[in-house]
Amino acid sequence: MGPTQPERWVRERLGHSPRDPALFVSALTHRSAGGAHNERLEFLGDAALNFLIAHQLYRAFPAADEGDLSRLRARLVSREPLAEIAAAHDMRAVLHLGAGELKSGGFRRQSILADALEALLGALYLDAGLAGLEPVVERLFGPRIAALPEPASLKDAKTRLQEYLQSRGLALPRYTVLAIAGEDHAQRFTVSCEAAPLRLSGRGEGSSRRRAEQGAAAAVLAQLGAGVDG
Amino acid sequence: MGPTQPERWVRERLGHSPRDPALFVSALTHRSAGGAHNERLEFLGDAALNFLIAHQLYRAFPAADEGDLSRLRARLVSREPLAEIAAAHDMRAVLHLGAGELKSGGFRRQSILADALEALLGALYLDAGLAGLEPVVERLFGPRIAALPEPASLKDAKTRLQEYLQSRGLALPRYTVLAIAGEDHAQRFTVSCEAAPLRLSGRGEGSSRRRAEQGAAAAVLAQLGAGVDG
Repeated sequence: MGPTQPERWVRERLGHSPRDPALFVSALTHRSAGGAHNERLEFLGDAALNFLIAHQLYRAFPAADEGDLSRLRARLVSREPLAEIAAAHDMRAVLHLGAGELKSGGFRRQSILADALEALLGALYLDAGLAGLEPVVERLFGPRIAALPEPASLKDAKTRLQEYLQSRGLALPRYTVLAIAGEDHAQRFTVSCEAAPLRLSGRGEGSSRRRAEQGAAAAVLAQLGAGVDG
Repeated sequence: MGPTQPERWVRERLGHSPRDPALFVSALTHRSAGGAHNERLEFLGDAALNFLIAHQLYRAFPAADEGDLSRLRARLVSREPLAEIAAAHDMRAVLHLGAGELKSGGFRRQSILADALEALLGALYLDAGLAGLEPVVERLFGPRIAALPEPASLKDAKTRLQEYLQSRGLALPRYTVLAIAGEDHAQRFTVSCEAAPLRLSGRGEGSSRRRAEQGAAAAVLAQLGAGVDG
C-alpha cells in the first residue's frame, strides 16, 4: 500500500524497475486527486507512443500508403484500445483518483485509464530513454499489431469498390437515389449502385445519402466476393 | 543535377551524409511526379518530429500544462512554420514535382513543402536513427523554440481573464449580448463583459457571439495591463 504500490505495479506489469519512482506515482495520479498529476507526462507519452507505433507500422506494412498507416495507428492508440490495455493490466488498482472520479463509468473512465497509460509511457521514456520504452510498447502493442486487419479492409466500401474498378481500368460505378421517405428529421434514403462493367448492382438504405451509398457499394462488393478485402 | 542533387542538398543543408541516398530522393519526390514518392516517409517523419518537439517543449517549459504544450507545439509543426523552414533552405530547388504542381501557389505549395520537410526527417530517422535526427531537428527548430511566446499568452482572452480572476479568488465575469444587427447570414453581435470585482467592463463586436465575447474580454484585459500576459 501507499507510495510503493505503484512502483511494484510498474515492476511487475511493465517489467521496469523505476530509477525515479516519483515519476511513476505522478503518471498514475489523475488531476482530480490534487498534487502532481499526470497531464504533462500524458502529453509526452502520447507523442512517444505515436512515434513508436508509426515506426512499427511503417516496417510491418511496406505496401500500405499514408492513409492506411494513419487508420491502422488510430486502431491502436485511440482511447478504447488504450483503456483495454490498461484494464487488462489492472491499472485501476494503482490509479490515484479524486473521490468523485472513482464512481465515474463508461467514456469518462476509459479516458482516465487511457490517459494514465500514456502518462506511464512518458514516465518510462524519461526514466529509461527510448531504449527502455521500446520493448514495453512492443510487448503491450505487439499482439494487437499482429492482429490488425489488412489495410485495404479499413477503407470504406465506396473507396474499395472505386479502387477495384480503377485498378482494372473499368468505368466507375453510378449511384442513384431511388427514394427518400420519412419526415424531415428522420429521412430514409434508398440508393442504387450500378457497376456496369461488372454487370452488378446493389442497393443500400440509410439515414443519409452517404450512408445509403456505402450500403449499396457494400452490396456490390459482397457479390464480388472476399478477394476485394485483401 | 540528376539524382546527386538531392544528396548534395541533404549534405549541405541538413549536415548529413546519406548512407542510403535513395531514401532522400523519395523524400523529395511529390506524388505528382510518379514513382516512389514521399507520403509514407512523411507519415514517419511527422511522428518523429512531433515526438522530438514534445520532448524539447516538456523540458523547456516545466511550468506549462498539457494544453500549453499542445498549443506551443502547434506553432512549430503546423503547415506554415514547416513550409517557412523548407523555403528558407531552398528546398524548392531539389523538390521533384509533376508538371502541373510546379505552378501551384499559396496553400497548396505550402503543403507540398511542409510534407516534404517531414518526409526528409523521416528519411533521416531511417538513415541515421534518432541520434542522427535529433541534432538536425534541434538546429532547424531551436531558434523557433527559443522565440516562443510565454505559454499563457497563447490562451484566448476569455480563458486568460477567467484564470486571472480565479487565481485571485474573484467572481467570474458576466457576458451580456447587447445587440444583434444585420441580416441572418451576416449578423453582427455586440457583447459586454463585466468584471464586477475589478470594477471593469469592456465591449466587443463580431460575426458570432463567441467572437464578440472574446473581444469584450480582451477589452477588459487591456485595461488590466501587460501583467496578465506573462
